[in-house]
Amino acid sequence: MTELPIGLVQQACSADLKSNLETTVAAIRDLATQGARLVVLQELHRSVYFCQQEDPAIFDLAESIPGPTTDVLGALARELNLVIVASLFERRAPGLYHNTAVVLDSDGSIAGQYRKMHIPDDPGFYEKFYFTPGDMGFQPIATSVGKLGVLVCWDQWFPEAARLMAMAGAEVLIYPTAIGWSREDDTDEQERQRQAWVTIQRSHAIANGLPVVAVNRVGYEDNPSGGEGIDFWGTSFVAGPQGEILYSAGTGSPENALVKVDLARSESVRRIWPYLRDRRIDHYGDLLKLYRD
Amino acid sequence: MTELPIGLVQQACSADLKSNLETTVAAIRDLATQGARLVVLQELHRSVYFCQQEDPAIFDLAESIPGPTTDVLGALARELNLVIVASLFERRAPGLYHNTAVVLDSDGSIAGQYRKMHIPDDPGFYEKFYFTPGDMGFQPIATSVGKLGVLVCWDQWFPEAARLMAMAGAEVLIYPTAIGWSREDDTDEQERQRQAWVTIQRSHAIANGLPVVAVNRVGYEDNPSGGEGIDFWGTSFVAGPQGEILYSAGTGSPENALVKVDLARSESVRRIWPYLRDRRIDHYGDLLKLYRD
Repeated sequence: MTELPIGLVQQACSADLKSNLETTVAAIRDLATQGARLVVLQELHRSVYFCQQEDPAIFDLAESIPGPTTDVLGALARELNLVIVASLFERRAPGLYHNTAVVLDSDGSIAGQYRKMHIPDDPGFYEKFYFTPGDMGFQPIATSVGKLGVLVCWDQWFPEAARLMAMAGAEVLIYPTAIGWSREDDTDEQERQRQAWVTIQRSHAIANGLPVVAVNRVGYEDNPSGGEGIDFWGTSFVAGPQGEILYSAGTGSPENALVKVDLARSESVRRIWPYLRDRRIDHYGDLLKLYRD
Repeated sequence: MTELPIGLVQQACSADLKSNLETTVAAIRDLATQGARLVVLQELHRSVYFCQQEDPAIFDLAESIPGPTTDVLGALARELNLVIVASLFERRAPGLYHNTAVVLDSDGSIAGQYRKMHIPDDPGFYEKFYFTPGDMGFQPIATSVGKLGVLVCWDQWFPEAARLMAMAGAEVLIYPTAIGWSREDDTDEQERQRQAWVTIQRSHAIANGLPVVAVNRVGYEDNPSGGEGIDFWGTSFVAGPQGEILYSAGTGSPENALVKVDLARSESVRRIWPYLRDRRIDHYGDLLKLYRD
């Protein structure tokens, strides 16, 4: 198979975990009837984006992998004969939690998982409180539809992560995401932020000659500690290996989309743009430093 | 000074080296009267883009650094009290040539040079015949207007180069460039290429929180070995540290532009988007390989 039908589920979430999962499952079933062989879910789709506050009680939302959500989604993947990229709040041990993407293969098994490596921490996005940075590195996950370079949200701002996935044979980069606007920013600033988010991910497609799939949540979520909440900006999209936009969702509504991506086109593009040929690894050593001072 | 007035010279070149330099000098004088403190020239502005063919006689175009062009531009920089980023075909020794950017400081001295590290080689762009890949690494050049992260053309496709310059304290990334369309490609492909070129360079601004200046040549140049030549697509531009476009030239004509860039904004942007804080250098080791196999 060189043309892969990929489903994207851009959804709005509430505090009702059961209802969120029902919405997700219904979307996956809908995309399966349209022919999806791979479905990508947004970051932390089981719940609201709970990192607007730091509250130890919220660790109750975390679950093991395998666990209740992978049981449901694994069975669904097997039933529908497709691959699912899910994003969970992983409870690895008491006091040790991760922001983890897990891939359910079309036979229902867990093909692999990726623990978010770069963890943000900004006003409204207090992720360093909840998530230990991943310890599994940047390894694509082999599935029945190809090698998936699964990364998560904040990773999308780091060209190093995309490069390492491509260098390990990833055929597509996948970013479950939860990003949105603060109402304290004016509309110019909001648009600069959204365009930057699209641009940096398109650039990973270009630099590495492979398609990129980004799935973001949508809708307004309150800030439980007071003040403005977050308007998640949707804009889930797929870019081809030249960074060209193949599909882009709106900013305001849930949206399920099926996008057919020609995986064979990556090698054609890499032949005319042979960046992998010309990397100067003899002079890249300082990339392993924080700063060159 | 935090607001730096930067001049861009997007020009068309002919086989007449003297005339090309006269055009460049006139443009720099014009930009100086508008207040430029830094002027960026396009790649190999002394000549046509000669790499459409492989011809040993073309090495006659190469010159030493310091040499005749740096003498002219150094004197001009001193007279006009501004910094010039030039791009020359460097003759380092008989049989050893580089594609070199040289920075003339406002006192007329050579502030530093950068030898293009990543060398392309594609139909119509036979640079590996002419240019030995640089041996000076990725070092910003300190000048009277700040630390300049000068890179050249093909480097623009490599996030590693931009990152290393930012990590060494570059305050602005600068790309003299010569890139254009083949008439054998249809207009959709041509536009994908141009957009990819803009997008990847905007992404370096975003990933590193600093402004980017790209200056490209314009006009059609024949292919001396027959067949179609190259339509250089202009589109010289400046992006701010969120990747936002501050200025963009057209695709069809020579254009001199003065763009004021607020260098102090970089730190504000890096405070809300603190990517330098979160790089996972403990897992970046494989970036020093060609491939992870």
